[in-house]
Amino acid sequence: MVYIYDSVLRDGAQSEGISYTVDDKLKIAMKLDEFGVSYIEAGNPGSNPKDAEFFKRIKNVKFKNSKIVAFGSTRRPKINVEDDANIQALLDSGVSTICIFGKSWDLHVSDVLRTSLEENLNMIYDTVKFLTSKGFEVFFDAEHFFDGYKANSDYALKTLKTAYDAGAGFAVLCDTNGGSFPDEVYEIVKSAKKFIDIPLGIHAHNDSELAVANSIAAVKAGASMVQGCMNGIGERIGNANLCSIIPALQIKLHYKCIPEENLKLLTEVSKFISEIINVQHDSRLPYVGESAFAHKGGMHIDAVLKNSKTYEHIDPELVGNDRKILMSEVSGKSTILSKIMEIEPTLTKDSPETAMIIEEIKKLEYNGYKFEGAEASFYLLVKKFLGKFKKHFDIKYFKVIDQIPWENETSATAMVKISVDGIEELTSAEGNGPVNALDKALRKALELFYPVLKSVSLTDYKVRVLNSNGATGASVRVIIESTDKNMNWSTMGVSTNIIQASWDALIDSIEYKLNKIEDE
Amino acid sequence: MVYIYDSVLRDGAQSEGISYTVDDKLKIAMKLDEFGVSYIEAGNPGSNPKDAEFFKRIKNVKFKNSKIVAFGSTRRPKINVEDDANIQALLDSGVSTICIFGKSWDLHVSDVLRTSLEENLNMIYDTVKFLTSKGFEVFFDAEHFFDGYKANSDYALKTLKTAYDAGAGFAVLCDTNGGSFPDEVYEIVKSAKKFIDIPLGIHAHNDSELAVANSIAAVKAGASMVQGCMNGIGERIGNANLCSIIPALQIKLHYKCIPEENLKLLTEVSKFISEIINVQHDSRLPYVGESAFAHKGGMHIDAVLKNSKTYEHIDPELVGNDRKILMSEVSGKSTILSKIMEIEPTLTKDSPETAMIIEEIKKLEYNGYKFEGAEASFYLLVKKFLGKFKKHFDIKYFKVIDQIPWENETSATAMVKISVDGIEELTSAEGNGPVNALDKALRKALELFYPVLKSVSLTDYKVRVLNSNGATGASVRVIIESTDKNMNWSTMGVSTNIIQASWDALIDSIEYKLNKIEDE
Repeated sequence: MVYIYDSVLRDGAQSEGISYTVDDKLKIAMKLDEFGVSYIEAGNPGSNPKDAEFFKRIKNVKFKNSKIVAFGSTRRPKINVEDDANIQALLDSGVSTICIFGKSWDLHVSDVLRTSLEENLNMIYDTVKFLTSKGFEVFFDAEHFFDGYKANSDYALKTLKTAYDAGAGFAVLCDTNGGSFPDEVYEIVKSAKKFIDIPLGIHAHNDSELAVANSIAAVKAGASMVQGCMNGIGERIGNANLCSIIPALQIKLHYKCIPEENLKLLTEVSKFISEIINVQHDSRLPYVGESAFAHKGGMHIDAVLKNSKTYEHIDPELVGNDRKILMSEVSGKSTILSKIMEIEPTLTKDSPETAMIIEEIKKLEYNGYKFEGAEASFYLLVKKFLGKFKKHFDIKYFKVIDQIPWENETSATAMVKISVDGIEELTSAEGNGPVNALDKALRKALELFYPVLKSVSLTDYKVRVLNSNGATGASVRVIIESTDKNMNWSTMGVSTNIIQASWDALIDSIEYKLNKIEDE
Repeated sequence: MVYIYDSVLRDGAQSEGISYTVDDKLKIAMKLDEFGVSYIEAGNPGSNPKDAEFFKRIKNVKFKNSKIVAFGSTRRPKINVEDDANIQALLDSGVSTICIFGKSWDLHVSDVLRTSLEENLNMIYDTVKFLTSKGFEVFFDAEHFFDGYKANSDYALKTLKTAYDAGAGFAVLCDTNGGSFPDEVYEIVKSAKKFIDIPLGIHAHNDSELAVANSIAAVKAGASMVQGCMNGIGERIGNANLCSIIPALQIKLHYKCIPEENLKLLTEVSKFISEIINVQHDSRLPYVGESAFAHKGGMHIDAVLKNSKTYEHIDPELVGNDRKILMSEVSGKSTILSKIMEIEPTLTKDSPETAMIIEEIKKLEYNGYKFEGAEASFYLLVKKFLGKFKKHFDIKYFKVIDQIPWENETSATAMVKISVDGIEELTSAEGNGPVNALDKALRKALELFYPVLKSVSLTDYKVRVLNSNGATGASVRVIIESTDKNMNWSTMGVSTNIIQASWDALIDSIEYKLNKIEDE
């Protein structure tokens, strides 16, 4: 068994650009428990009011797989441990497991703590002993252990011994600066293991892009706890990415980390965390990213369709991810063709329409379209080329006005005139911005003719500036995601005018729904 | 010496979302040459017209450090090598170095090539021999070598031997599916090295987040060429990231990879490539990302200011990157305080204004502001609190109208009325979108009063949807970057209305310039 110890809520909060609300933290903790990590390091109750409130509220939550851990430092130099306010906050946090970090690198003792090597050992001993004597399970995070070992191995090992003597349940060896190599980590963990009989953990940072390798090397050398963060978030470049470590250990190396049946939740949990912290889910995350099993090279696609093992290191379903076949000039005609034939099975690679469609796609991609993320717009494009697209409405015009100062919450007003089978309809609406106002006015008009549109709602709206050095005159690509509860679809618009780009994506979203109904 | 072999232009083109123009490819090749990689794999001249055009145009470029490599496959089964059109395209490409990939995994021979193991060896031999006999330097990429070795080591090694016998200059061992571990790679490279006396290379993919570790392990086992991509782009999750491998090898392990004096260009080259391929430069790239040396935790900041080695694995200047001190609730008051005191040295941590400013920042951050990326807006905020902000103009109103159908290239018209010292000015302008029209109208009015603004231009415009599930009613954050040639500054606006958010960022940009002039 390798204990998985997630620190998204603590070390993760030290990522550039990440800031949690208390509700965010609660939601993530519950998700991690459902997934089945052993420990959730949730914050430092003495450091800020948000963490203090979190620990108060988490007391009422029942967990089935995970223990909540409060994180804190050894007592300050030259005071009694019971007089340290941060230690007091740990006592009051309501958890049963506490992780204490202390210095294992002599440089940090002299240059940062500015105290003696002896006093640092006392700080470790007093803090761990005080908490274990109160009945807490205590882990000791040996900060900078590897750098410390390289500088002064006797002293680094002595800090572990001190924590052990004071009753710590785990000594966690930290590569805090992320500068170590896997072979070094392996050797140093081996010698720590030989020196002392305390369960060891590993806590690696990714500054050298080696945190996953270092964590696995430590496990191979005998560590039985891995500290890291889902999605690899964390201070600077981030902590060791548990989304890559868990499947490597569990699928490939056959260690038990989380309940077997939960491994297929990995992709979902990873996306959930990105959603909560409000960053785009990184498509290039190993195992769980959108691109992890996305094939683009023509020969790769051909081979994967013959035998998926040829270009996939694991079956994507094991971690809840999917295979994706991409379109592009390097993917060769056969990929685009298979996409086109999915939509229109009567076409072959020799049909003249096929060549025309491929030509048009290349032109549009040159102008910033990317059909990879907007399959519904691609569907409409193909249907239009084949003369099988039915236009359900015409736009006569829209006008949208935005101005300051404005009244109340509403800032934009839009007028939209459409016609359906020769019957015109003019509507207007207010919105909190111009796109919102246009969206409302358009739907108001169309729902009179197509009541089925009442079931459609927009679930996501993304804007990407394509050539951001064009400043306010730059091109933008807008992607809109829609749902009618039965299916989801994505559409796209590209323009130098964000309103036009949004409008085109909106029109496609509605036409897709209406065309699909008739196909069925 | 370890030869660095970059494939941004070939394997990189297989990344999801990446598509080059021929000009893009030329610019990147010239930049990589300036940086000093040994080889630039530039494409497959037989695979598409874009690559064919590239090879035609690159012939006229003089390179000082790098050789351009054309990439292609072994001949097809059961034909003569001289009858293979792709091989013919390689001959005509005008380069002196060719990289040929062939199959080393028996599964691929049987399931993908659908030919005999013997014929695959013939394909390797014939292709390499044909090209070496024409005077080319030929590298053999042993595709799936590690998976092949694990399945059938005799056969995998035989493919290397065949390439060697045919005169290949390097055999490059590929972890094509990215599923191997560093200790495996080390052992397998060692045994290949023992088996055959041909220089070895490594080509690793990052599907397990181990490509950097695997590349370094191969070098430690004796490989003397590393194939990868700058920024780690490439098929699926990407290729081994040369931006992490080069400094690890050169700074930490003392191998020579690129000219010593060019290492400090690493960050610039990495950013240049992102710029050309038009993706945001990933702030979490090790060594070269904006976050690589960004400190957020309060204790970290305190320590780094005492001794940077305490939380930095290398000196950021070695790779042309910078230290960054971030503001946030976890960074503690002292960080915000030092930022405030940079702007206003008279304040102390006990000044009542300081507490008010910190309070206000927390409120704004809660609403989606992030001063990390908009230091000029932060500057104005502090000045406003201190009553030291001078307002240079008032906005009476703006109105902006967007409509379709529209004439020509212009789609939006804006009116802006401002006043300066009681003198009103009403201007209007057309733009290719509403923000562009407003920007032009505002400048037209203000330049009458402040001619110095003629030197200011906008260099970047970024939009981030903050809660994208709010669909078209979502909040957006706009960041604008400005320059007057002497300095660059960033400002920000947040609103549910993208026009309002952009407007606020514009106003801040202009007020920053005008306030700064008076400070000097």
